[in-house]
Formats: sequence, C-alpha cells, structure tokens
Amino acid sequence: MARTDLNSDLGESFGPWPMGDDVSMLSVVNSANVACGFHAGDPAGILLVLREASKRGVSVGAHVGYRDLVGFGRRNMDPTSEELIGDVIYQIGAMQGLAKAAGTTVRYVKAHGALYNTIAHDARQAADVIEAIKAIDPTLVLMALSGAPIVEQARAAGLRVVREVFADRAYNSDGSLVSRRLPGAVIHEPDIVAARMLRLVREGRITAIDGTDIELEAQSICVHGDTPAAVSIARAVRDALVGNGVELKSFNDG
Amino acid sequence: MARTDLNSDLGESFGPWPMGDDVSMLSVVNSANVACGFHAGDPAGILLVLREASKRGVSVGAHVGYRDLVGFGRRNMDPTSEELIGDVIYQIGAMQGLAKAAGTTVRYVKAHGALYNTIAHDARQAADVIEAIKAIDPTLVLMALSGAPIVEQARAAGLRVVREVFADRAYNSDGSLVSRRLPGAVIHEPDIVAARMLRLVREGRITAIDGTDIELEAQSICVHGDTPAAVSIARAVRDALVGNGVELKSFNDG
Amino acid sequence: MARTDLNSDLGESFGPWPMGDDVSMLSVVNSANVACGFHAGDPAGILLVLREASKRGVSVGAHVGYRDLVGFGRRNMDPTSEELIGDVIYQIGAMQGLAKAAGTTVRYVKAHGALYNTIAHDARQAADVIEAIKAIDPTLVLMALSGAPIVEQARAAGLRVVREVFADRAYNSDGSLVSRRLPGAVIHEPDIVAARMLRLVREGRITAIDGTDIELEAQSICVHGDTPAAVSIARAVRDALVGNGVELKSFNDG
Amino acid sequence: MARTDLNSDLGESFGPWPMGDDVSMLSVVNSANVACGFHAGDPAGILLVLREASKRGVSVGAHVGYRDLVGFGRRNMDPTSEELIGDVIYQIGAMQGLAKAAGTTVRYVKAHGALYNTIAHDARQAADVIEAIKAIDPTLVLMALSGAPIVEQARAAGLRVVREVFADRAYNSDGSLVSRRLPGAVIHEPDIVAARMLRLVREGRITAIDGTDIELEAQSICVHGDTPAAVSIARAVRDALVGNGVELKSFNDG
Repeated sequence: MARTDLNSDLGESFGPWPMGDDVSMLSVVNSANVACGFHAGDPAGILLVLREASKRGVSVGAHVGYRDLVGFGRRNMDPTSEELIGDVIYQIGAMQGLAKAAGTTVRYVKAHGALYNTIAHDARQAADVIEAIKAIDPTLVLMALSGAPIVEQARAAGLRVVREVFADRAYNSDGSLVSRRLPGAVIHEPDIVAARMLRLVREGRITAIDGTDIELEAQSICVHGDTPAAVSIARAVRDALVGNGVELKSFNDG
Repeated sequence: MARTDLNSDLGESFGPWPMGDDVSMLSVVNSANVACGFHAGDPAGILLVLREASKRGVSVGAHVGYRDLVGFGRRNMDPTSEELIGDVIYQIGAMQGLAKAAGTTVRYVKAHGALYNTIAHDARQAADVIEAIKAIDPTLVLMALSGAPIVEQARAAGLRVVREVFADRAYNSDGSLVSRRLPGAVIHEPDIVAARMLRLVREGRITAIDGTDIELEAQSICVHGDTPAAVSIARAVRDALVGNGVELKSFNDG
Repeated sequence: MARTDLNSDLGESFGPWPMGDDVSMLSVVNSANVACGFHAGDPAGILLVLREASKRGVSVGAHVGYRDLVGFGRRNMDPTSEELIGDVIYQIGAMQGLAKAAGTTVRYVKAHGALYNTIAHDARQAADVIEAIKAIDPTLVLMALSGAPIVEQARAAGLRVVREVFADRAYNSDGSLVSRRLPGAVIHEPDIVAARMLRLVREGRITAIDGTDIELEAQSICVHGDTPAAVSIARAVRDALVGNGVELKSFNDG
Repeated sequence: MARTDLNSDLGESFGPWPMGDDVSMLSVVNSANVACGFHAGDPAGILLVLREASKRGVSVGAHVGYRDLVGFGRRNMDPTSEELIGDVIYQIGAMQGLAKAAGTTVRYVKAHGALYNTIAHDARQAADVIEAIKAIDPTLVLMALSGAPIVEQARAAGLRVVREVFADRAYNSDGSLVSRRLPGAVIHEPDIVAARMLRLVREGRITAIDGTDIELEAQSICVHGDTPAAVSIARAVRDALVGNGVELKSFNDG
C-alpha cells in the first residue's frame, strides 16, 4: 500500500500577530514544522500549537531559521559557522523543551526560508546545520529538498534524511523548483495539485513545467496553510490521497 | 567537614559586546548561572562558556530572565502566566540543547535580575516559574534567595530548592537584603566579605547591617565576576573557604 | 457648528504580519496614531501608511510605546527616566523622518498601551514623556485621556494637550474608563456607540455605566480598526456625526 | 594651509554593554559617526554621546546599518529596496530627533559594516541608501569609501559626497583596501599610521602594500576607538597632523 506524509509550517504567529490557521492544518497534516522563535513564533504561541499537535498525534519538527524576525527569515544572511551552529542548536533545544512540556517530542528538523534555500546547495552552511543537529541529537531526521546536494551531504554525515516535494510548486526538468519570479511557478488549482501529488506518490513521477516527465523521490509533501485558499489546497491533497488508498503517516512512524 | 557551593552569573556577553571574565570565574565557582538569551547571551557565546564549564566540571544552571535585552532583564515587567511559563520553558530548553552539545547538562534554574526579585515574593509569577520548571524537568533544582517566600512555595510544589546568599551584600536584621539604594548595601572589602562567608558556612550566622546577628541558611554563595574587582572578591571568598577547610562542591554532587 | 476629530491606531503591522485595515481606516479618521517600531510597525510598512495618510490629508501622530514587540507594548514596564526619554525621542524622530519622506509631518504624540495607561496617572513616567516631547519639538500636541492627571501636568509644562474619549468604551461616573475586566466595559452596538458620540460632541455629556449623566471634555474620539467589526463601528460613528452636521477635522487644523 | 577631518564610530554601546571610549575619542575627532540602534546603540546611550559631541562642537553623522544587533551589522543581508529605504530613513530620523534634543544636528550619513561594504559597489543597495537620504534631507552629506563606485553614483544622484580613507588599513595598488584576511591588512604602529596620513593629506599619495605609490583623494580620515590601542593610534594621527600644521576641521564647516 502506498504511503506518504504531509507536512506544513505552523506556529508562525508572533505576539499579537496571528498567522495561518494552525488548528485546521493540524487536522490535515501528519508532520508540523513548528517555528522556533528566530524567524517567527513566540514561546506561549508555540506551546499552544505543540499541545494541539500532541493531542492529535501530529509529529513535531523544529523549523529553524535565521535570526530575522522582521524579514521572516526570508532574507539571505551569512552567519559564521559558530553563529549558525549555535543558533540552530538553540532553536532545536528550545523546541525540545516546549515539546516536552506539551507532552510530545521533536522528531525532525527542517530549515525555513532563506536558510532552507541556502543549505540546499551551500555546503558550508549545510555542514553547520548538520553539525548542529548531530551535536544536540543525531537521531533527529533532517527534512530537505528532494534532489538537493544537502541530501547526500547529510547522509554522508550520518543523518537520516527525509526528502520532500512542494505540492503547489512547478518543477523544472532537472528536478529543481521553478523560481517564484517566473510565471507558472505556483499552481493554484486544488484539483491539479492533488492529482500531481497522487501520481507522485504512486509513480514517483511528476510533469515538469516544460511538459517532460521527471522522477522525484519524496517521503513527504509540503502543503501550505497561511491563507484560506492554501488550507483548501492542503485539504484537497489530503482527500485525493486518502480517497485513493494512500496511507498518510509520519515518516517517523514504523 | 563544612561544605558549600559558589555560584556566579556567566555567559552575559552578547554578540560583539563582552561582559565579565567568564574563564577566570570558571576557576573560582562550582556552579555557573548561564544567561539564556533573553536578558543576555547569544548561542555561540553561551556554547563557549558551556564547553569551558564542561571541561572544568562546573555545574550548569539556566539563568532565565525577562525578555528585555536592552534593559538586561533588570526592569520589572508583568507578563501573563502563559507568556512567563512559555518564556521560562523556552530558555531552559535552549540551554539544555546547548549544554548537550557542550557535553554537559543543565542541573538547576536561577532567575535573573527583576525576575529574580519579583518571584522571591510575588506568588503568581513564582508559580509560573515553578510550573515551567516542572513542565520541562521536575528534577531541576531551583536556586532562590534564602528566606524568601518562594523557597517554601517551590518546595510545596515538589521542587528541590537551593537557598543562596550574596557574598558582597549587607543584610537587614529580618534576613532580607539591604536595598542597593541605601548606603552600606554592598561590601567592597575582599577580606570582610571572605570572613563573613566563612562564618556563614561554619556557623550559619551573619552580622546584619544594624549589628545584630542573624541566622541564614544557604547551600550556595553568589559571587560576582563582572569587574576585575569583583573577580578579586570572588577569589578571596574561595581562598578563605578552601584555606579554612571548607569543601567547595556543587550542591548537585552527592 | 459642532466639530470633532476621529483618531485611530494605524501602522501596527510588522514584517510579514499584517494588522488592521489601515486603508479603510484612513477613509474614516482625521488623525492617524502611527506605531513607531517599538511595540509594532516596521519602517517599510510605516512608510506605506504615511504616504496614504499624506495623500488623504489625514493628520499624523507618533504612537510611541514601550520597547516590547512580543507583548505589543501592553505589558507594564519600569524604564528609567533616561531610558524612557531616549526611547520616546527616538520614536518621534524616526516617525518625523519617515513622515518627511512621505510628504507629511508629525503633528502630535500619543502613547500606546501600557505606556498610555501608565502616564495617564504616573507623574514620573508622564514627566519623562513630556520632557521628551519638549526636547524634540515643543509644538507637538500631546493626545491624552480626558480627565487624567497628565492633562494638567502636560499643560503646566507648556504642552498643548488634546483630550480624547474612546467611542466604544463605557465610563464610570467619575469619568474614568470601566475596566475591561468588568462586564459592559466595551460597547459593541454601532448605533449605540454612534449615538453616544453624537451626544458627546453636541452636549459634552455621556451616560455613565451606572446611568448617571457625566460631563466629558474631548477634542478627539478614538475609534478602532483592528477587526472588520471595529471598522464598522468606526464608520457608524463617522456617518452619525457627519450626517448630523458635525464637522470632522483634525484638531491641528485652524 | 592643508586641512582634513578625522571621523570615528561612536555610540556603539548597547544597554548594559559598553563599547569603546567615546569621551576620549570626542577629544580626537571632528566628526562622530553615531550608531542609530539597528546594529548598535540604544537611545539613552546615543543621547549621552550626542550631548558630549554637541558640547565639544564635534559634527554628527548618522551611522546607519543593517538590522542585526547580535551580528553588529557585519553580516551581509539582502533586504528589499522597500525595507532598506525604510530602515535608513528610520535610523536617520531617529538620530535627527536625538540630535535635536542634544542641541545639535545630523550633518552627514555613513553606512556601517556590511552595509558600508555592500553599497560601496552594489548599485542597487547603494541606490536605496541614496534614495533614503534624499527623501529625508537631500542636503545631508554621504561619507563613502574613496575610490568606490558609490561616490560617483551618489554625486550623479545629486548628493554631496565626502570620501574617506582608513588610517590603519593597507591599500592595494588599485586603491582598494587590502582584505582583512590577508597579512599586513591592518597597520598597528602609531608612528607609521600617522606618517602615512600626514603624507596623504599633504601630497594626496599613499604607499600601497606592493610598494607602489598611489593617489587617493579623501576629505576625511577614519580612525578607530574601540580599544585603548586604537585610541592611541587615533591620537598619534591627530598629533602628527596638528603638529605639522594641518588644520582639523569638519568637512561641513566652511
């Protein structure tokens, strides 16, 4: 029986500012990438999300980012290795503490925004993130972009890696994401997104933006929940998968 | 044989700004209250202190504070219970993560600055800090002001509490600290400070500012290291204790 | 002909997090209390609001707050006078710079959240805010709670003061606001709110929560815009005033 | 009679953390580049520096930086144009407000750290900084690296530009700074530094690291004050210039 995992970014509110519909998304996904306070998330708000995730049996990941709240961790930065290693350990540790208090545990680590994109291909910052994870808990899984160099780099360093695809993003024929600056980079129709993901799970293939068929290996699918439309797409993906016999289960569960 | 513990605030540098002489102080104290990033301390700098503490066998405490960097956690604030509980768990968790990476563990929790003073007597904020500690790890020891109401409150809640005195501070006859705004509140002569602490350890007594003798129970003595003069006083206290046969040992060690 | 001024808190978005419907509110109010970056507001977002305010001829006020982003400036703090004076000047100066770039000018100052409530009656912090305003521009108007001690304190110090009432809040018979913790503190019916404000403008009287009639002097009415319901109430107040011949005009205009 | 200007970075303390010896440096330099709170500097501390600068007749510049306190503005970032323009206006405005309160005015703008290096050659970010300055006050002078492309870019945009050299830095034969990562990049001998600067002022020439003589145009010399050794070098430069009849005067003064 085919199976996969749905993940989404959660816990991105900050103080008086809400973001996304975390409760709805926790009924859609198996894995919650929870912001750790550097690009978004405040401890009290994170704790609420973790308690809800714990109650629903959703797997928790530490969604680590650059220390750039106003830029939401989306701006490139060049921290030193000492800074980046420290920042990643700090964020994972804080999330582990909050998870413990919420009756759950951190199962994996995913980088956010500019850090996600940078470590996908920048070997130095990737090595820093990998070192940080190994220093705090080498059994933590790294979630990374399917096809990116960091996948092999992290495995060679001894980490377990889960590869993910983005449900609503178009891919180039070489397996990379179509830049958001180009037309067609984001797919908005729930039915099309759902059909693409169903085929990906069943066949391991997806149609690239130039019409060619490409192979993509992925153990998790990233869906968004920051707008009502995004939640609808996420639900459509879930319904298509479940309705067609795909088992949705965290990659951490046996 | 008499024994006690010396503790000091460390890890209070931030980014480009150094504070205190952490390496020197780690050769003086048994217990390091390490700043967790909310009132001071950045992850890379904290990690350096923790590695040094680990190497020297100094016990590590999470020195939690209000989220007020520019005010160094010295300004009173009134967070909600949700905020304070979340903030304290977050800070302890981050410190646990960094400690793990440095090859050591967090053994106790001490509040800093305004939070320290507030929870000494404010039952609501004290309850929040106690709840936070219990939520993340109920075996963590709380270090608190000898004689303050929080000591009994925390014990009643099931926490182990270590009471501390301040080496260079004058005491009122009721066992409270003389306010820093009053003359004589801080004792600057190393010999006098050292003699007071030696007597305290041996007899459990100290001379109050009005000349009366008072009893004070303490398992740890707080010394400062933020200036060269402070380091000298700390060394004088250590030398006087060790030279007179007092064993210096973390309260965590058997 | 009767006249008054409507003011509202704007510019409270921060980085990726929106708050309120600033564009709608700029079609309702005459005076915009724009967040200065300490409790809310980032420079790029503030600039957008100021340009819109400038285009529409809405008067701009610097909405200064405590330096507490995660707490939205709603938590009490006790900065020193040096800190508070510096923080207020800094915020006003930053807003003046952004206003200049947007083709407008800062006309008044209003404190936000906990700082607003504190300076209403705390003479020390009130004196700090007054001193800060005088140091940067003594012609700036202070907007303050009608009936609060700061009104006389600021006038005695030489500042021009505009007193305001809150459109949707109930008042005690002594002219103070009914605490938000009590039932009936906030009035939710647009018609009732509008009728109360119309009477206030015409007669200088309002019905207190105990049914007695009280006199309230106010040159400005504060309306909220943080939710769609709040915008509706604000519009209802505006429509009731304009429809009954009240002139809406900034207190700064002739 | 030859003349020049000495400038230095000041106001870089933050909350409890001091940095540099501002009072000493204010007796050495004519122009103070004062941190604006984004990479360093808190309002109360900035105000102290500005009052001292005002008393001594030292010209004040807004030392604007990236919003990165823990990284001291030394890490590359890629803000959008909207963000960078807003951030620069905000910082200059805040400094103007504090300067007004201190009885002085902001005369020029200098970028700090990574922003300084980036805008020297990155035309997009340079254009943003130039636009920000023009938006808040087009009469403000931009202080920039002698020989860098931004000099012509800013002049073409209508700004007055002052070019500076770094007293203790070695230069390549093309007029660029020798990278700090290379040996010999920083000159530590006060006599040599002073002699180089005296020759530069008199002849407009300096010996490059490869022994060749190069021409450098500069109206200001940057000296450092962050360590006692740096203050000594700064004083040596001043003494050598004054002792040899060079007039030290802000470039802003007739």
